[in-house]
Amino acid sequence: MTQSPTERTRVKRLAKRAHYDEATIHAILDAQPFCTVGYIFNGTPFVTPTMQWREGNHIYWHGSSASRALEASEGAEVCVNVTLYDGMVMARSAFNHSVNYRSVMAFGRAFKITDDVEKEQKMKNFVDLLYPGRWDMLRPMTKQEFKATMILGLELSEVSVKVRAAGPGDDEEDFALPIWAGVIPMHVQMEAATDCPRLPAGLVPPAHVKAFKFG
Amino acid sequence: MTQSPTERTRVKRLAKRAHYDEATIHAILDAQPFCTVGYIFNGTPFVTPTMQWREGNHIYWHGSSASRALEASEGAEVCVNVTLYDGMVMARSAFNHSVNYRSVMAFGRAFKITDDVEKEQKMKNFVDLLYPGRWDMLRPMTKQEFKATMILGLELSEVSVKVRAAGPGDDEEDFALPIWAGVIPMHVQMEAATDCPRLPAGLVPPAHVKAFKFG
Repeated sequence: MTQSPTERTRVKRLAKRAHYDEATIHAILDAQPFCTVGYIFNGTPFVTPTMQWREGNHIYWHGSSASRALEASEGAEVCVNVTLYDGMVMARSAFNHSVNYRSVMAFGRAFKITDDVEKEQKMKNFVDLLYPGRWDMLRPMTKQEFKATMILGLELSEVSVKVRAAGPGDDEEDFALPIWAGVIPMHVQMEAATDCPRLPAGLVPPAHVKAFKFG
Repeated sequence: MTQSPTERTRVKRLAKRAHYDEATIHAILDAQPFCTVGYIFNGTPFVTPTMQWREGNHIYWHGSSASRALEASEGAEVCVNVTLYDGMVMARSAFNHSVNYRSVMAFGRAFKITDDVEKEQKMKNFVDLLYPGRWDMLRPMTKQEFKATMILGLELSEVSVKVRAAGPGDDEEDFALPIWAGVIPMHVQMEAATDCPRLPAGLVPPAHVKAFKFG
């Protein structure tokens, strides 16, 4: 499926960096759990960092039932941004410096998951997508904890993607200048896990800890 | 200087993670050039990823003069979010899983830099804050490039900070469970710079390339 851009998702600047195909959108959403959610509260814009996960053609995020970000987003128009930064692009002119990135913007009306069974399944999916198999290892979630947790969802029906993955795009006459130009690639590096100081003796990190990464 | 929280910046959830002192705010802004800017366009919220830099008690960001994000933000209420992700916090219960992070939210009315001399100085500051000494190595910016560039600023007068930097915060009765818990620390790792394929022979990356990092 390829989405047709709407007034909100048509990429205005540098349209050559725009992609609307579903595979590209899903790959970015699956590679980057961190996101920011934009919403309006008392007439002014707010941007809240949180984590998202994807199930089919929807993304979800969660938080405290008492959270302002979730309260204000429920049933309201939101904009979810998911961005991976891949490198600093250094050109011969200040103007042509850039960044390599993969970025998704999703627009629409956020909805709340109200069904208890669906809510539990969604929490399990979130945990297990990050850490495969972890849900069943954990102390089960209590009724009170479910009550204190709100999950919002958004259909991926109005989405734009912008990707830059290239070397410096200097002006033709600048390439010969004696100025170093290139790319500093970057990625999110996971470090060795540190045990909780109160860990009972003999417990070691499961495979989903050692294998954890994103990007 | 310590800021008093306003209705927008008072941290409602987990107030123990809230800090309002200027040193903490500046340290986070200086450590993370990437940000998201939230603004309202045609009545709905937008979140655009970009880069910010700090000069004293202001932050600035820039883009194309034709950019929707900048056009819609000029003179309007915005929310700028700057977040560093420091680690995945894994607890004995799903509910107590968390993330270590440092996050700043700045609110206010964005203003445009209109004076040409100030605009040039700001662009130099942006480049040199990222890459010390680079501005003077570059092909000078042309009048046309300045015209095509818009810089917006925001006074840091209404700002909140939230920081989590700790191990798992399990329920007291859960600490003894035979479940691995701990933290997977993470940071943004710079890789070895790659030369532009059209680099003249003999040019090597300057010190500001090898030393580049943030976090």
